[in-house]
Amino acid sequence: MNAREKVSALRKLMKKHKVDAYYVPSADPHMSEYLPECWKHRAWLSGFTGSAGEVVIGMKKAGLWTDGRYFLQGSMELKGSGIDLMRMGEPGTPSKVQWVASQLKKGQSLGVDASVISVTAAREFDAGLAGYGIKVKYFTPNLVGELWDGRPDPVLAPMVNHPVTFCGETVKSKLTKVRAAMKDTGATAHVIAGLDQVAWLLNVRSRDIAFTPVVTAYVVVTSRAATIYVDPRKVNKGITKTLKGKATIKGYDSIWNDLEKLAKAKKTCVWIDESCTNRRVVDTLKGADFHFAPSPITALKAVKNAVQIEGFAEAHRRDGVAMVKFLKWLEKAVPAGGQTEITASDRLAEFRAEGKGFQDLSFSTISGYAANGAIIHYSAVEESCAKLKPQGLYLIDSGGQYPEGTTDITRTVALGQPNRRQIECFTRVLMGTIDCTMIPFPAGTTGQRQEMFARRALWAIGEDYAHGTGHGVGQYLGVHEGPHSLKNIVTPPLVEGNILSVEPGHYEAGKFGIRIEHLAFVVRDEKHCTADKTWYTFHPVTLAPIDTSLVDKKLMTGDQIGWLNSYHKRVFKELSPRLDKAHKSWLKKATKAI
Amino acid sequence: MNAREKVSALRKLMKKHKVDAYYVPSADPHMSEYLPECWKHRAWLSGFTGSAGEVVIGMKKAGLWTDGRYFLQGSMELKGSGIDLMRMGEPGTPSKVQWVASQLKKGQSLGVDASVISVTAAREFDAGLAGYGIKVKYFTPNLVGELWDGRPDPVLAPMVNHPVTFCGETVKSKLTKVRAAMKDTGATAHVIAGLDQVAWLLNVRSRDIAFTPVVTAYVVVTSRAATIYVDPRKVNKGITKTLKGKATIKGYDSIWNDLEKLAKAKKTCVWIDESCTNRRVVDTLKGADFHFAPSPITALKAVKNAVQIEGFAEAHRRDGVAMVKFLKWLEKAVPAGGQTEITASDRLAEFRAEGKGFQDLSFSTISGYAANGAIIHYSAVEESCAKLKPQGLYLIDSGGQYPEGTTDITRTVALGQPNRRQIECFTRVLMGTIDCTMIPFPAGTTGQRQEMFARRALWAIGEDYAHGTGHGVGQYLGVHEGPHSLKNIVTPPLVEGNILSVEPGHYEAGKFGIRIEHLAFVVRDEKHCTADKTWYTFHPVTLAPIDTSLVDKKLMTGDQIGWLNSYHKRVFKELSPRLDKAHKSWLKKATKAI
Repeated sequence: MNAREKVSALRKLMKKHKVDAYYVPSADPHMSEYLPECWKHRAWLSGFTGSAGEVVIGMKKAGLWTDGRYFLQGSMELKGSGIDLMRMGEPGTPSKVQWVASQLKKGQSLGVDASVISVTAAREFDAGLAGYGIKVKYFTPNLVGELWDGRPDPVLAPMVNHPVTFCGETVKSKLTKVRAAMKDTGATAHVIAGLDQVAWLLNVRSRDIAFTPVVTAYVVVTSRAATIYVDPRKVNKGITKTLKGKATIKGYDSIWNDLEKLAKAKKTCVWIDESCTNRRVVDTLKGADFHFAPSPITALKAVKNAVQIEGFAEAHRRDGVAMVKFLKWLEKAVPAGGQTEITASDRLAEFRAEGKGFQDLSFSTISGYAANGAIIHYSAVEESCAKLKPQGLYLIDSGGQYPEGTTDITRTVALGQPNRRQIECFTRVLMGTIDCTMIPFPAGTTGQRQEMFARRALWAIGEDYAHGTGHGVGQYLGVHEGPHSLKNIVTPPLVEGNILSVEPGHYEAGKFGIRIEHLAFVVRDEKHCTADKTWYTFHPVTLAPIDTSLVDKKLMTGDQIGWLNSYHKRVFKELSPRLDKAHKSWLKKATKAI
Repeated sequence: MNAREKVSALRKLMKKHKVDAYYVPSADPHMSEYLPECWKHRAWLSGFTGSAGEVVIGMKKAGLWTDGRYFLQGSMELKGSGIDLMRMGEPGTPSKVQWVASQLKKGQSLGVDASVISVTAAREFDAGLAGYGIKVKYFTPNLVGELWDGRPDPVLAPMVNHPVTFCGETVKSKLTKVRAAMKDTGATAHVIAGLDQVAWLLNVRSRDIAFTPVVTAYVVVTSRAATIYVDPRKVNKGITKTLKGKATIKGYDSIWNDLEKLAKAKKTCVWIDESCTNRRVVDTLKGADFHFAPSPITALKAVKNAVQIEGFAEAHRRDGVAMVKFLKWLEKAVPAGGQTEITASDRLAEFRAEGKGFQDLSFSTISGYAANGAIIHYSAVEESCAKLKPQGLYLIDSGGQYPEGTTDITRTVALGQPNRRQIECFTRVLMGTIDCTMIPFPAGTTGQRQEMFARRALWAIGEDYAHGTGHGVGQYLGVHEGPHSLKNIVTPPLVEGNILSVEPGHYEAGKFGIRIEHLAFVVRDEKHCTADKTWYTFHPVTLAPIDTSLVDKKLMTGDQIGWLNSYHKRVFKELSPRLDKAHKSWLKKATKAI
């Protein structure tokens, strides 16, 4: 079937289920950032393969909502499908609610698979459409799933233990903390649907989803019990033994019966994290009281303990060795010819794979040469990717998954002689990286304010980057993790033990892109702490040289130059014991003081 | 009567009115920042004269809530009154709601004069006490007013026109804009209780309240009519003629009847700005629909037009002349002896009064020598004020009211040889002033983020100031004006035509205080604007030298030094034509490039 035929078949199913429109999000039942293949319903139906996009099918018209990154790709991939591209953020583009209201009459209804929409998103539909007298019907099964012949089976990688030697805290201790939080709010149960929350709480990992080593499972915690609902084919004797006495293991689909029972129990109050829990959970719990709030796990998980902090440092030493090998290799390989954006990123992946404990990349590598470096979410494609030439800038944003920690690093290097504009912009991005990392900030400071230091040197010349400065990072979990961030949004104040990326950038469309990124821990700035006031600063864990051929030290303050030289000294000190003579000598040169 | 006797008399009245506690805020019916004498009920009752403080009288106990500025003064002034000092912000201090709940039983009630509590504050009482089953009774008359023998009469200064030559916009044009905003929201009437809103809308001013040249009045705007409710003794033929055809003038108390009538009219929807409208207005409008939102006047008023911008510039030239005279005078007067914090601020007021059009100070001058400079809201008192000696730092924060504009300036000067610490801190405060003013920022930036530039140089050494960086300013109106600000609170993005103070500081308790303040307009930064993106920067209007004996240029960047030198050049250029030879030559030296 082509997309047009699929949409037509879906409309027949819609009639059968008595809904006048159907919503097909890009989501799985756990609101995961990266979707397993078997949950890519939207891509299968529409033919649009971008990472962000939601479809609504009406009886006559249909639309796909996506953002500016995908306007070009969307218009190409949707050709002939009968699905209109809805360019989000452009004037005149209706919201999904507005569009549904324009297609449906009062009394008609929108169908939604309750298991792939979050409680928050469902509430927005309900509130938005109520005003038009349009109902939202939440039900399973998924109508697109019904049509999808050859839908891939779920990946059934084994569930394994993430040992305390890596994560630094027992399941027992974590459960005690979660139960204490539940007690404080009067919740008698907590349904945990976010896969990173499940993984953190029970110290389990798997390989169900690319890049993020989570286990597809739900957990229900009560004051006495903890139950993990997971496909039994993922469970072997080892993990059964490890979880014994901590959590009961049940089948993935057994949760629905158990939730119904839970709802019928007396004085039940269920803690639900609305942003990552699907609507079906709440519908199944009908009759129970709810405590809607972010899971207590979110804040607990974001504060790394001493074992994790050392683990991240170790992971970054291995990652740094891979980066040094890669950057040295690139220096020769580009002039030698034959390299492309993809061969380069493949080579880096190979260097990473040589590192002890390397498990996977932590996201799809962004390998952007020259003009492609200016595309913030660029993804090189085999057929069209650029050849690397000994001129212009090259940007590579990549990361690895190690049981000790997750990495995420961006370096931008000059493949030939950079021009003055490139040097000025690179230097100002670097000044942002340094200021954001170096300047102490008092307890209570939010990332929304702190990230201004990363923008200052660029704003000074009327330049800015259209993305946040940084995000939290999980330990051998999602490379993007909340609740804190360095973005212009409301997030909790930064606290000791948070790890964030610091990644300002500068992009000139059609010309070049620059980004410098490291991960850094929020640490106490003992020098400035007083009895009354706690000061923090960032301690970077990422270790890799920054291309000093792109640096104009005349633009920098003495403190900034001092920071760069001392950072480079540390890079050499920490990585050189792991390098052979040739790489050591290359790194010595690359980290020379300016 | 002393405070104890007054409280006892109040309790008798409370019994008569069947309330078990009574709330006495520091407020007038218009939620003014500076209270007219006749509305200082709280000060009369309690004996506490600080600017911030609220009293609740129970049948046995009584409390006064104030903030850290007034803990010492409060504990002294409340002695013997039977009123407990409630130290806000200290652990263990109950909120007013918690305290009332601890004093009253279920079913009992708290009495409040409906005319001196905002709709917002009343809502907080209602919501907070409902949980305890305690009722809030809103009524007039004011029980403290009933007791207050010799309560001053309201000041009855004439209401005068603020001509279009100063304010740049006719009443007709302003009414059209307000009515357009009303139409957009479906409001059929707008009750305007904020005195700055009244003054701006009808281009009227008076001298009812110290520092802020507002008229005590309400305005009601409907699609067809505008009515100002004001004491007839303030109205003369001139203003009657000016307002003819624009607004009807009625007696101040006629509003209550008119609001009752308005509520009875069909399809009435009244726009109420909850933050500055008293509860009595809403109670009197019972039966009407409401549109609760900030008055459209707030945002309109905050964007100054070209006439106002030039007016502010002119007012600041006059103000700058007074500052130059003062600073030169201070240089000789201090070593000559006999000067105090008060004689100095009086002398500055005299210099200001010599300026054309000077009407009043815009707030009570902060004149703080040495350790007193570290008290952020210091107010020198005749008996205890410090003598100025030719050593240490002296901080003076003051402003004037001119029909063309309102000024607010702080300068800190060394009266003798400053030490290294003072120089470093002064330089870093100055770097903050400069960065916050100089660095371009894109449209959409909020003050909450922008003010980070003012803090950066201080944070770099682990120092911070416990106040916002800046506030909006009215034109010949309140020296503090919303909605925008440079503070760590949520306010709308800065837009062209906003005027704000930029006033970072540094305070060392018991030693010295430093603050540098200027007012500056948000202007387009043409150099960096593109077709897609608007950039702003600040253009300072305050003109007075900054003490360069306190500046260590080695700490500053070249751009910062360049800014200071060019600012000083401008100060000399704009002020010198208005100075005699001696002052000109003094200013030449004071503004010499570093």
